[in-house]
Amino acid sequence: MDSITTIAIASIITAGVTTTFGTMMPAIGEGRAVSAALTSIAQQPDAAPTITRTLFVGLAMIESTAIYCFVVSMILIFANPFWNYVLAN
Amino acid sequence: MDSITTIAIASIITAGVTTTFGTMMPAIGEGRAVSAALTSIAQQPDAAPTITRTLFVGLAMIESTAIYCFVVSMILIFANPFWNYVLAN
Amino acid sequence: MDSITTIAIASIITAGVTTTFGTMMPAIGEGRAVSAALTSIAQQPDAAPTITRTLFVGLAMIESTAIYCFVVSMILIFANPFWNYVLAN
Amino acid sequence: MDSITTIAIASIITAGVTTTFGTMMPAIGEGRAVSAALTSIAQQPDAAPTITRTLFVGLAMIESTAIYCFVVSMILIFANPFWNYVLAN
Amino acid sequence: MDSITTIAIASIITAGVTTTFGTMMPAIGEGRAVSAALTSIAQQPDAAPTITRTLFVGLAMIESTAIYCFVVSMILIFANPFWNYVLAN
Amino acid sequence: MDSITTIAIASIITAGVTTTFGTMMPAIGEGRAVSAALTSIAQQPDAAPTITRTLFVGLAMIESTAIYCFVVSMILIFANPFWNYVLAN
Amino acid sequence: MDSITTIAIASIITAGVTTTFGTMMPAIGEGRAVSAALTSIAQQPDAAPTITRTLFVGLAMIESTAIYCFVVSMILIFANPFWNYVLAN
Amino acid sequence: MDSITTIAIASIITAGVTTTFGTMMPAIGEGRAVSAALTSIAQQPDAAPTITRTLFVGLAMIESTAIYCFVVSMILIFANPFWNYVLAN
Amino acid sequence: MDSITTIAIASIITAGVTTTFGTMMPAIGEGRAVSAALTSIAQQPDAAPTITRTLFVGLAMIESTAIYCFVVSMILIFANPFWNYVLAN
Amino acid sequence: MDSITTIAIASIITAGVTTTFGTMMPAIGEGRAVSAALTSIAQQPDAAPTITRTLFVGLAMIESTAIYCFVVSMILIFANPFWNYVLAN
Amino acid sequence: MDSITTIAIASIITAGVTTTFGTMMPAIGEGRAVSAALTSIAQQPDAAPTITRTLFVGLAMIESTAIYCFVVSMILIFANPFWNYVLAN
Amino acid sequence: MDSITTIAIASIITAGVTTTFGTMMPAIGEGRAVSAALTSIAQQPDAAPTITRTLFVGLAMIESTAIYCFVVSMILIFANPFWNYVLAN
Amino acid sequence: MDSITTIAIASIITAGVTTTFGTMMPAIGEGRAVSAALTSIAQQPDAAPTITRTLFVGLAMIESTAIYCFVVSMILIFANPFWNYVLAN
Amino acid sequence: MDSITTIAIASIITAGVTTTFGTMMPAIGEGRAVSAALTSIAQQPDAAPTITRTLFVGLAMIESTAIYCFVVSMILIFANPFWNYVLAN
Repeated sequence: MDSITTIAIASIITAGVTTTFGTMMPAIGEGRAVSAALTSIAQQPDAAPTITRTLFVGLAMIESTAIYCFVVSMILIFANPFWNYVLAN
Repeated sequence: MDSITTIAIASIITAGVTTTFGTMMPAIGEGRAVSAALTSIAQQPDAAPTITRTLFVGLAMIESTAIYCFVVSMILIFANPFWNYVLAN
Repeated sequence: MDSITTIAIASIITAGVTTTFGTMMPAIGEGRAVSAALTSIAQQPDAAPTITRTLFVGLAMIESTAIYCFVVSMILIFANPFWNYVLAN
Repeated sequence: MDSITTIAIASIITAGVTTTFGTMMPAIGEGRAVSAALTSIAQQPDAAPTITRTLFVGLAMIESTAIYCFVVSMILIFANPFWNYVLAN
Repeated sequence: MDSITTIAIASIITAGVTTTFGTMMPAIGEGRAVSAALTSIAQQPDAAPTITRTLFVGLAMIESTAIYCFVVSMILIFANPFWNYVLAN
Repeated sequence: MDSITTIAIASIITAGVTTTFGTMMPAIGEGRAVSAALTSIAQQPDAAPTITRTLFVGLAMIESTAIYCFVVSMILIFANPFWNYVLAN
Repeated sequence: MDSITTIAIASIITAGVTTTFGTMMPAIGEGRAVSAALTSIAQQPDAAPTITRTLFVGLAMIESTAIYCFVVSMILIFANPFWNYVLAN
Repeated sequence: MDSITTIAIASIITAGVTTTFGTMMPAIGEGRAVSAALTSIAQQPDAAPTITRTLFVGLAMIESTAIYCFVVSMILIFANPFWNYVLAN
Repeated sequence: MDSITTIAIASIITAGVTTTFGTMMPAIGEGRAVSAALTSIAQQPDAAPTITRTLFVGLAMIESTAIYCFVVSMILIFANPFWNYVLAN
Repeated sequence: MDSITTIAIASIITAGVTTTFGTMMPAIGEGRAVSAALTSIAQQPDAAPTITRTLFVGLAMIESTAIYCFVVSMILIFANPFWNYVLAN
Repeated sequence: MDSITTIAIASIITAGVTTTFGTMMPAIGEGRAVSAALTSIAQQPDAAPTITRTLFVGLAMIESTAIYCFVVSMILIFANPFWNYVLAN
Repeated sequence: MDSITTIAIASIITAGVTTTFGTMMPAIGEGRAVSAALTSIAQQPDAAPTITRTLFVGLAMIESTAIYCFVVSMILIFANPFWNYVLAN
Repeated sequence: MDSITTIAIASIITAGVTTTFGTMMPAIGEGRAVSAALTSIAQQPDAAPTITRTLFVGLAMIESTAIYCFVVSMILIFANPFWNYVLAN
Repeated sequence: MDSITTIAIASIITAGVTTTFGTMMPAIGEGRAVSAALTSIAQQPDAAPTITRTLFVGLAMIESTAIYCFVVSMILIFANPFWNYVLAN
């Protein structure tokens, strides 16, 4: 296989794997956070505003790690400097 | 194998794997969130509206990580820039 | 092996694996959600309508991740663009 | 190996693996759901009709994911488009 | 190896693996269901008829996933269309 | 290696693996069921006849999955259609 | 390697692996059952005869799965039909 | 493959893997921390300011380990000294 | 490698592995049984004779699975029929 | 591949893996420590200063293990003695 | 490699692995048994003689599985019949 | 590859792996110790000085195992006797 | 590679692996035993002499399994009969 | 590769792996022991001297298993008899 094909394949596979495994654990972490929020609201309904506000901040933090992976994946598909280099040469 | 075949195979496998493993953990996370919601409603039926509203927001956040994977998978099948490049050359 | 055979094999294996592993975790998640629903009904029989309604919404969300995988699997078997391309060439 | 043999082998193995691993987790999920149902009936015998009805709906949902795998497996054995193509050519 | 030998070996191994791993989780799931039934009977002896009836329905559902695997295994050994094809040619 | 040797080896290994791993989980499941039965008898000695009867039905169901594997294993050793075919040819 | 050596090696390894892994889980299951029996006797000393009788039936069922593996292992070492065939030819 | 292609591929794969697996555990850790915060607020609503402040400091510490991985990943894609060396030679 | 060497090596490795992994789980199972016995004696010192008697029966059953593996291992080292055959030929 | 390319690739991969896996467990450990701190503050708000002070010392200790890995990773990328040697020769 | 070297290497590796993995689980089992003994003594100091006596019997049983592995390991190093055979020939 | 390159690569990879995996479990152990300390302070604030002093001794012991790995890693990078030997020859 | 080198390498790797993995589980087992001892002393300070005496006997038993591995490791490095044989020939 | 290089590489890798994995479990065991000590002090502050004394003896025992691995690692790097032999020849 020539360079272009090899780099294309490596980019495709890495992009898929990055998004796939990178979003696994955030989904688990968010599920755990949401569960705790729901249990907490049931236990102390008066604190629901504080709980949901803290929940959303926490979800944003956790989601950010999934975003990192999605960004790397998009870079590898649409703005891959190595791909651009081999195309230009 | 020539470049076109190789990239096609890599795209097929990556697309399948991305959707497969990328939807695994969201399913677990959503199951956990739904479980907590049901337990919470049983414990505090009066807070059911707040609980279901928070649940739906949380499910949307978790589902979003599955959507990322589905999107990457669809890009690899129907809008793959590497595939388009090798077809064009 | 020629291109057609290789792509056919990759499609067969990926289609099977996608459905197989993609339905694993939804089954677990649904089992967990149903368990929580049953325990909750036993604990608070008066809230059964709210619980079953929330359960069905949650099952639909979890099942959707299994559907994504089934859809990708069907696309790979019956509407595979890479297969169509190599057949057309 | 020629194309026909290779595709036959891939279909055999994929069909077996799909059914095998695809029915693993539904079995676990159903076992968990049944366990919860039995525990719930013991705790609240008066709610047995509601519990068993919800249980059967839930089992149907979980079983559906096993059915998806069985269907894909049957398609690969008895209605495999790739097999039909190589036989026809 | 010629086609007949290869397909025979693939069928033997797949048949064994399908039954083996396909009956693993049903055994676990049934063990869990039976355990829950026994614990429930001990807790609420008056509900024993309802519990055992629900248990048997549940065991049948779980056993069905093991049956799927056994059926696929028997098809691969005694009614394998790919084997029949290569024998006929 | 010729066909006869290859099929013999595949049959030996598959037969061993099928019995081995196929009896793993039933042993665990039965251990769990027996444990639950013993705990239940200690908790409610008056329900011992109902518990042991339910236990034996459950053990039979779980053991049946181990029997499936043992049967497949015996078929592969003593009534293997692929082995008979290659011997006859 | 000739056929005799290959089949001998496959038989040796399979026999060892079958006994080894086939007795793993019964040991665990029996340990769990014995533990439950001991805890139950301590909790309800008056039910000791019923408990030990149920325990021995359960241990026999669990041990039977280990016996299956030991039997297959002995068949492979001392009454292997494939070995007898290659010796006779 | 020549040096440039090889280093490009190693950089692509390592960059993807670093971000992917490096953000896995922070997501879990943050999910756990957020869960504990929500449970704590529900238990002691008066301490909510102290809890959220401590939570944010902790999330920052945990996020920092994800940042390390993201930084290494960005270095490997956009400021890779080995890549620069092989390009310059 | 000639037949004698190959069979010797397979026997050595299989003998070691059989004893090694075959004694793993009995050790765990016995540790669990002994733990339960000690906890039970502490909870109900008057039932110590019954408990220790049941414990020894249980340990004998569990140890028997380790004995099976040790016996197979000794057969492979000192009474290996395949080794005897290749030596005799 | 020549020496320079090989060492470059080994350095790239090792640097990525070191940071990735080396920051995994600190993230988990910190998440656990932060969780314990939050739970403790909720349980004993008066001890919050002591708890947060102990927490920060502990986080620093845990973070230090992540720093070790980051330092080794940076050494391998920017101050690699083996790379410098092969460049100088 | 000649026969002597190959058998020596297989013996060295198998001896090490047998001792290593064969002593793993006994160590865990003994740790569990000792833990239970200590907890039991603390709970019922008057039963200390019975507990320690039962503990020592149990530790001897568990240690025996480690001894099996050590014995097989010593046989492979110092009384290996296969090694003796190849030396004698 | 010549000796120098091979040893360099082995040193790089081993140094990275040693630090990476060697600091994993100390991080977990320290996280557990810190968690226990925080919980203990919340439970018994008067014993805080004793607890923190014992905590710091324990953290030092646990950190020491991470230091061993870091030291071995530094030896392999900067004071590797095998590297020095091959450079000197 | 000649015989001497091969046996040396096998001895080095086996010696390292034997000590490494052979001391893993004793460390865990001892940690569990020490934990139980400390918890027991806190619960029943008057029984401290009995507890520590039993603890030391138990630690000696557990440490003995680590010693076995260390002894085998030392035999392989400093008193290896296979190494001595190949040196003498 | 010649003998010297091969043995050097095996020594480097084994030394790293031995220290790395050999210190993993002691770190976990010590973390568990320290946690139990801290919890015990919080529960029974008057027994702190006995607890810390027992803790230090236990930590020394656990640390000893890490020391074994570190010693073997140092022997392999600085006093390797196989390395010395190949250098002398």
